[in-house]
Amino acid sequence: MPAAIDAVELTRDLIRRPSVTPADAGAMAIVEEVLSGLGFRCRRMKFGEIENLYARYGAAGPNLCFAGHTDVVPVGDSAAWSKDAFAAEVVDGLLIGRGSVDMKSAIAAFAAAAADAIAAGRVTGSISFLITGDEEGVATDGTVKVVEALAAEGEVIDHCIVGEPTSAETFGDMVKVGRRGSINAEIVVEGVQGHVAYPHRAANPARPLIKMLTALQERKLDDGYPEFQPSNLEVTMIEMPNTATNVIPGVARARLNIRFNPNHTGRQLADWFDLEAWRASVDFPGKITVTSSISGEAFLTERGAFTDLVAAAVADVTGREPELSTSGGTSDARFIRALCPVIEVGLVGKTMHQVDERAPVAEIRTLQQVYARIIDRYFAA
Amino acid sequence: MPAAIDAVELTRDLIRRPSVTPADAGAMAIVEEVLSGLGFRCRRMKFGEIENLYARYGAAGPNLCFAGHTDVVPVGDSAAWSKDAFAAEVVDGLLIGRGSVDMKSAIAAFAAAAADAIAAGRVTGSISFLITGDEEGVATDGTVKVVEALAAEGEVIDHCIVGEPTSAETFGDMVKVGRRGSINAEIVVEGVQGHVAYPHRAANPARPLIKMLTALQERKLDDGYPEFQPSNLEVTMIEMPNTATNVIPGVARARLNIRFNPNHTGRQLADWFDLEAWRASVDFPGKITVTSSISGEAFLTERGAFTDLVAAAVADVTGREPELSTSGGTSDARFIRALCPVIEVGLVGKTMHQVDERAPVAEIRTLQQVYARIIDRYFAA
Repeated sequence: MPAAIDAVELTRDLIRRPSVTPADAGAMAIVEEVLSGLGFRCRRMKFGEIENLYARYGAAGPNLCFAGHTDVVPVGDSAAWSKDAFAAEVVDGLLIGRGSVDMKSAIAAFAAAAADAIAAGRVTGSISFLITGDEEGVATDGTVKVVEALAAEGEVIDHCIVGEPTSAETFGDMVKVGRRGSINAEIVVEGVQGHVAYPHRAANPARPLIKMLTALQERKLDDGYPEFQPSNLEVTMIEMPNTATNVIPGVARARLNIRFNPNHTGRQLADWFDLEAWRASVDFPGKITVTSSISGEAFLTERGAFTDLVAAAVADVTGREPELSTSGGTSDARFIRALCPVIEVGLVGKTMHQVDERAPVAEIRTLQQVYARIIDRYFAA
Repeated sequence: MPAAIDAVELTRDLIRRPSVTPADAGAMAIVEEVLSGLGFRCRRMKFGEIENLYARYGAAGPNLCFAGHTDVVPVGDSAAWSKDAFAAEVVDGLLIGRGSVDMKSAIAAFAAAAADAIAAGRVTGSISFLITGDEEGVATDGTVKVVEALAAEGEVIDHCIVGEPTSAETFGDMVKVGRRGSINAEIVVEGVQGHVAYPHRAANPARPLIKMLTALQERKLDDGYPEFQPSNLEVTMIEMPNTATNVIPGVARARLNIRFNPNHTGRQLADWFDLEAWRASVDFPGKITVTSSISGEAFLTERGAFTDLVAAAVADVTGREPELSTSGGTSDARFIRALCPVIEVGLVGKTMHQVDERAPVAEIRTLQQVYARIIDRYFAA
């Protein structure tokens, strides 16, 4: 029987490996060693320069997967940290270090919970780990490729827990059952430069750009969707440089982003941008080009047995009924949702990506208990 | 009796003085010497570093003034010129040089016409010259200050001819009887920077800016005014820099310019900008600031005896009835209009400010004839 795992000590070991994307710095080897010791069959899957790991314990179904990442964001202003970002020191019950919240602690907590469940013989199906080193980066050689490869092989994952920090104010107050989609667009308007006193000889690109941005900005996209905020558009950049007061410039650019709920698809929104570009270019002698880039479609794990199970596990440990939310930025959950229902359950995210990122040691142990309850309820069901 | 003046040779002498604003390079001394020789009482009026000259021949009324400037715009790419910009060479009947069109030639042509009229004893009132060295620059120490000083002294100028190049395609096809006003405004919107996924924690400055620019841009200002084009607004700059696709920037800026006819005053338009800023800031937690700058009010010399006289003089010499126009950019005529009716009459402006600025020698002599006919008709009236 494998020894119990101390989730806090394992988190500290992982923090001491400065795995700033795309560097691995030996972090994945620690995860692999721990899981191998528990009896997991480990497969390293390297795409480009990125280390990925898929590990499975058991062969029977159902297969409950834990997904996470070993990579972390850069330290930032290292002089502003009260402790070395990779020293993993504990001060007043707080574990300080890059990755203490996002999300080396969650990997350690789930591994510790899995070790206990395996030791107790409660894993009647399979537990798997899908760990990537490319979540904080461009995310092109990470989870998305692992998911593609597993799907191609016919590997079945029935449900997935992602260990991202999801709690808002207090541990357990929120889990995430989906995320909004995200689309970026760049608009380039090519007009004709000229003198403001002779506008008929020029074609001011500001005119159609403002017209188009107004049409985009003024439309109410929707009133929300179950579990989702209303979709929202933000203009993120406008650029029509010109130092002279008497010159009409020749080119204007803008960028925008929409976070959207399942009322929309990225393709529909991209088509809408093109339509508004066409409308704004009526009577304009220049040219409007829109380049759209869909970062991810909206996805949702609908309310049902799996969301009930996770919410009950959180309530068992914290006495708190978590909000099932879809707020916030994207995560690798969007890729895994193609395989199976996904719920993200993790620590309070407030200090993630910041100077002095820190997690209360007690909360890492509480997270382990929540994961243990999820595993127990999952295989008892 | 003073000797006759060769307008082309005088133009060449003036071009050889590289009087790029604010430099004088001895140009004003040439004008002063020529006019003194004709019996003008010359007064140098220096404001700041700028040379100005007011010269008057005769003491009786009416006083017909010629206004112009000795300063020129920079050479630009000197290597692109076919001849030295200050060598004043004549090639195939074209006088090449900076100031050959705008407007050393007009000063020379009017001086030559005045010399002939004085010699013939046809000046029954007064002829005066108001010449500045600061028309192409910021124009703060030039005509505007001379006009203020003359008005303070009670100097009476009854009518004024400005020698700016006004012909459009063929010499004599257009004179200018007024100009549109011009106002610039800078809009600064201060919002709250944030993450696109959490727009409720940010205040995107693009939103009120686009709203305000739409209100400004979509309003039809008027349908024109007698002798004037419709007033026109152009957005000349927009700036909301941001390199990240997931960030809502904190500040946005825009600049705009309106060229307006006498339906509007600069003050009214500035008030309108402030009103639209207020409207756009409703429900916006940030701040919108508009800084307006009135470059000049619209002005017009109405159709009447003076415009008829000038048009007839042009027709006498060219056989062509000139269009009485108010098109184009600003000139010092806007300052002189405070004293008396002003008409601008000059060469074809196509090559002004360009590389190889050039005037046909024959047209400089034709311009002299037109000015001579204006002087004759003026004092015969």
